[in-house]
Amino acid sequence: MSTYQQIVLASRPQGHVSPGNFRLERVPVPVLQPGQLLVRNHYLSVDPYMRMRMEDVKSYAEPQAINAVMVGGTVGEVIESNNPRFKVGEFVAGGFGWSEMGVSDGTGLRRLDTSRIPLSAYLGAAGMPGMTAWYGLTQIIAPKAGETVVVSAASGAVGSVVGQLARLRGCRAVGIAGGPDKCRYVVEELGFDACVDYKAGRLVQDLQEAAPAGIDGLFENVGGEVFDACLGRMNPFGRIALCGLISAYEGEAVMLRNVRNLLTMRLSLRGFIVSEHMDLWPQGLAELGALLAEGKLKYRESVAQGLRSAPEALIGLLRGKNFGKQLVRLID
Amino acid sequence: MSTYQQIVLASRPQGHVSPGNFRLERVPVPVLQPGQLLVRNHYLSVDPYMRMRMEDVKSYAEPQAINAVMVGGTVGEVIESNNPRFKVGEFVAGGFGWSEMGVSDGTGLRRLDTSRIPLSAYLGAAGMPGMTAWYGLTQIIAPKAGETVVVSAASGAVGSVVGQLARLRGCRAVGIAGGPDKCRYVVEELGFDACVDYKAGRLVQDLQEAAPAGIDGLFENVGGEVFDACLGRMNPFGRIALCGLISAYEGEAVMLRNVRNLLTMRLSLRGFIVSEHMDLWPQGLAELGALLAEGKLKYRESVAQGLRSAPEALIGLLRGKNFGKQLVRLID
Repeated sequence: MSTYQQIVLASRPQGHVSPGNFRLERVPVPVLQPGQLLVRNHYLSVDPYMRMRMEDVKSYAEPQAINAVMVGGTVGEVIESNNPRFKVGEFVAGGFGWSEMGVSDGTGLRRLDTSRIPLSAYLGAAGMPGMTAWYGLTQIIAPKAGETVVVSAASGAVGSVVGQLARLRGCRAVGIAGGPDKCRYVVEELGFDACVDYKAGRLVQDLQEAAPAGIDGLFENVGGEVFDACLGRMNPFGRIALCGLISAYEGEAVMLRNVRNLLTMRLSLRGFIVSEHMDLWPQGLAELGALLAEGKLKYRESVAQGLRSAPEALIGLLRGKNFGKQLVRLID
Repeated sequence: MSTYQQIVLASRPQGHVSPGNFRLERVPVPVLQPGQLLVRNHYLSVDPYMRMRMEDVKSYAEPQAINAVMVGGTVGEVIESNNPRFKVGEFVAGGFGWSEMGVSDGTGLRRLDTSRIPLSAYLGAAGMPGMTAWYGLTQIIAPKAGETVVVSAASGAVGSVVGQLARLRGCRAVGIAGGPDKCRYVVEELGFDACVDYKAGRLVQDLQEAAPAGIDGLFENVGGEVFDACLGRMNPFGRIALCGLISAYEGEAVMLRNVRNLLTMRLSLRGFIVSEHMDLWPQGLAELGALLAEGKLKYRESVAQGLRSAPEALIGLLRGKNFGKQLVRLID
């Protein structure tokens, strides 16, 4: 292999993301300098935050540059190494983006033990999405046993972990997901106490039945109407971990009827980005890794095949078409 | 005086409050039991929170009962006492509501020193509104010197104190108020660094000029469009003390364009009710009282004359017609 493929951002989306915003390129495999290593990526992660990076607006991170490789987490195998810390054949997690290969001096790479946890899980429950769930639940919601925790996008990479961790802490875990298949999975496979199908048209009533004692902790991934309905059922001193706002990523204004509850229920809300809390990753990953290895933390993946499927995978994710963690597999 | 007047809630408002929601009654002055004292109220406080109490909805407090005296803070003079802890002629703060007199066993009454602070100020900067400002600023926003603090309803009883306390802590204090007179007062009399007139139709641009380095702390009293504009200028890790939502008290839904910033700027927001933090009142009132006595904390009052003016005073307050702390004077 003397060349490999990568996908760059060709243009910024106006409203919805389209395949034309991306461009596939073929580039030469570089010659390694001393200290460098070459990774062949096996999976790349497709995450909602990528949508925000595509815009040129003030946010927590610099916008994704035009003509640069799309950002993203990856897991892969070291196939060549001039770095004594990494051997050929080892597996590593990195941030090589939408690319079949990546070159690194080792900074920020994490060596992965695939003997008990599958490689791809390091992009999901044992990686950034799992840590996102762990951080928001334990550091912001900090639920007590017996409390009710609600999470939107409950069948997704983050939401599925939130509810399972909440159950393990003795909470009532209520999911919100789109469609009966996802809701069934959330309850029957993941073990949530209940799941509300926001597409069923009875959001407020269904949420009332699913969380009869009100909501003490809300892990918010979606925003918009679903968020508003949850706001309306929050208990006094409830905590809201604001993790994502998929519904607002494409620029729509939001009509909220229950903003008043932030005041009358004395709620706390905090937006967070898990990469700003690296000090807690060892603690969180230790818990998540142990649960995964013991089979106590379940997850599901949507796997698209081949680098060129990445744009459609992201577009589908933003429409809720994925079921579980969205990945792109780069090996055959 | 063998009788006195009081105002009861006659009916709950549908949308806007109207004078017909209230009823003036004349009742006999009661004969005191052992341990009781009789207070002649000199001033009663008119506050935005009263609007929420008038509705029969789940909130932080029980709804105001129909046919019961309207709730509210009062200051007055002890005119008769069977209680050894209170002497005739002493001044006290209590919660006797919209009433010319009040009977108490002394529970919850606060004896007032009027030698250096005027009696009415104990309903404003030296009372609940001042404590509200102090709590939200020091316990939620917790600003560092050099940061920018923005407060809406800046000429009001709470907002005026927020900005002055922020200035004393070395912050840039920016007010938002309605109309050039209030804005001039906020800057020239209260000493804020800038004040934005939200009625001038250039809210976003004016806020940008008034807070050129962005907003680190937001003390929110109003909600709605003003809140949304401030959200759009928040700096990373900004703190929002949610104290009031006057614009949402009458039930309107709110269209927010900048909800996304709660996430992208990793903001913290907390709704609070100052009466739930009584442990901090001694500390806060000590600071406020000292500043007032030294003339370092300025305030302004809108005083309506006579109990029967209370309903219109509340209606005006909800429309922003007051200028400073809204009071009703019950003595001639």
